[in-house]
Amino acid sequence: MAGTGSIETIRALCCDLPAGDAGAAQAARARQAVLTKPPGSLGRLEELAEFMAHWQGRDIPTIDKAVALIFAGSHGITQRGVSAFPAAVTAQMVGNFAAGGAAVNQLARQAGIDLTVVPLDIDTPTGDFTQGPAMDEAAFVAAVDAGRAAVPDGAQLVCVGEMGIGNTTVAATLCAALFGGTGSEWVGRGTGVNDAGLARKAETVDAALGFHGDRLSDPLEAARLVGGRELAAIFGAVLEARLRGVPVLLDGFVATAAAAPLAKLAEGGLSHCLAGHVSAEAQHGRLLGRLELRPLLDLGMRLGEGSGACLAVNILRGALACHSGMATFAEAGVSEG
Amino acid sequence: MAGTGSIETIRALCCDLPAGDAGAAQAARARQAVLTKPPGSLGRLEELAEFMAHWQGRDIPTIDKAVALIFAGSHGITQRGVSAFPAAVTAQMVGNFAAGGAAVNQLARQAGIDLTVVPLDIDTPTGDFTQGPAMDEAAFVAAVDAGRAAVPDGAQLVCVGEMGIGNTTVAATLCAALFGGTGSEWVGRGTGVNDAGLARKAETVDAALGFHGDRLSDPLEAARLVGGRELAAIFGAVLEARLRGVPVLLDGFVATAAAAPLAKLAEGGLSHCLAGHVSAEAQHGRLLGRLELRPLLDLGMRLGEGSGACLAVNILRGALACHSGMATFAEAGVSEG
Repeated sequence: MAGTGSIETIRALCCDLPAGDAGAAQAARARQAVLTKPPGSLGRLEELAEFMAHWQGRDIPTIDKAVALIFAGSHGITQRGVSAFPAAVTAQMVGNFAAGGAAVNQLARQAGIDLTVVPLDIDTPTGDFTQGPAMDEAAFVAAVDAGRAAVPDGAQLVCVGEMGIGNTTVAATLCAALFGGTGSEWVGRGTGVNDAGLARKAETVDAALGFHGDRLSDPLEAARLVGGRELAAIFGAVLEARLRGVPVLLDGFVATAAAAPLAKLAEGGLSHCLAGHVSAEAQHGRLLGRLELRPLLDLGMRLGEGSGACLAVNILRGALACHSGMATFAEAGVSEG
Repeated sequence: MAGTGSIETIRALCCDLPAGDAGAAQAARARQAVLTKPPGSLGRLEELAEFMAHWQGRDIPTIDKAVALIFAGSHGITQRGVSAFPAAVTAQMVGNFAAGGAAVNQLARQAGIDLTVVPLDIDTPTGDFTQGPAMDEAAFVAAVDAGRAAVPDGAQLVCVGEMGIGNTTVAATLCAALFGGTGSEWVGRGTGVNDAGLARKAETVDAALGFHGDRLSDPLEAARLVGGRELAAIFGAVLEARLRGVPVLLDGFVATAAAAPLAKLAEGGLSHCLAGHVSAEAQHGRLLGRLELRPLLDLGMRLGEGSGACLAVNILRGALACHSGMATFAEAGVSEG
């Protein structure tokens, strides 16, 4: 994949997204109807089989190669006291990922997922977006391109996650820019800030909205001005997956917010994405609602790292195991209702 | 395990249940607090690790041997038109389980679970409980004992499920007997009955409640008079697991109803059980609420067979993978908040 070069090249890609294979989805639905179970009794597992068929273009989809792409970035706004953890933890956790000690390492291994961690200039925080742009165009495009390049050949499912101290405030600002509302309507406690920290988060969002004003009305400009490198990379990975017809599992609030500009740029722009879970981070449920994404899991998780997406891969694997492995009524000699 | 011989022997076992290992749970909680994540950020995964430690009596619990026990039974009330499928499907599906073609076969394999199917006199339906007892004492005790005997040595987690055309009506009747309410308050569409079928289900429940009256006030008598063999066997398996300190994953409406008498017989009688999921069967959520069980999954499934329980094993495996495999803050050199 060549570098995209400019925001306008990225925008052009977003305006010409492939629609998936409706015929394969129809064939999968027809197969579900004759498997040995009452019609509809596997609930969302049936929908998931159809969804995977639609995007993989095969009536019996598989997940032989699932990948989790975890992008890490550093944020200028951490100096505003928006996290319960020091900014140095971003780099420390990248080390922890490399050593295999983080939650997502365990969850990826358990679900048979290849894990790739992509640190994005973590020694160079983005700009404090209450006082200027988070990224210039070159930095933003480089981050999007890094996300696009991280999607490996042959991937049949991509999970996206992130690490970046301060990035729930970034995500809240991006949500406010894309969907309207004030800081207090989009912030949550993230890693566990107290009431004063929560107030600082809301103030940071509001200051950013005030500083950038109408320039945030364009989704890509919003992602550049009040986003972060790891969010831009997730946007790039989600875009690249769509261009290649690969389904995506989103993780929590930050990953979902990072992907959201694609929904604003193109009708159905996220229709190849599933929400792995709904986070305990306060506004994730609301964001999923705006995007018409129904989460697969609701387990009070709020870690990020792709943890909820990786856990949800097991649900997809179960759905596809039923779809491919079950006998039909005719094969099993079971009477239909 | 010797046969229990009588209902009163079963009752005595239910009154002397082991309480689990609070010290191991405490040790697991302490470990969770120092793993490389914000405190509480793995949500229910943290609670699950603690739960498993409590019942396995080890601060780092494992699931090397998970078993799914699927009990099948036949019901006299099927002649009352309470299912969308003919009664012969019970035996046909037992054959499908043996051949590996059912949903639960795929879900058990996907989650690394040993599957055992136990047909219980399926050629001999229980009595029509609107006109007499479903089982005499010998038949009931034999079914409970079959459930107890099905729990294999060395099991670290037991999933319970069922197959039995007509058994959502059985479960609804048992729920009404245990928790009060009329037929229409406990029935649902099961395999997919129409409105007339739903009305017949409610009428069947109400007829049973009227016929047996106050004899249903004893939970074990209720399980005998308006239950079924597969429900009695699930009760036995859940009891046996508790006696051996083995945690249990319940499946849907029927499996949960089958276990419910243990909660009525002993305070905390089901505290070693997790609800694998909440079924789309109408009253399962209400039943879980009565039992103070919070489901792990909510995916619109309503198949039975242990399918929801087996799928939820993946969540438990993820929780234990994090608990055992994550680095501590000190090990990873990550700053605490």
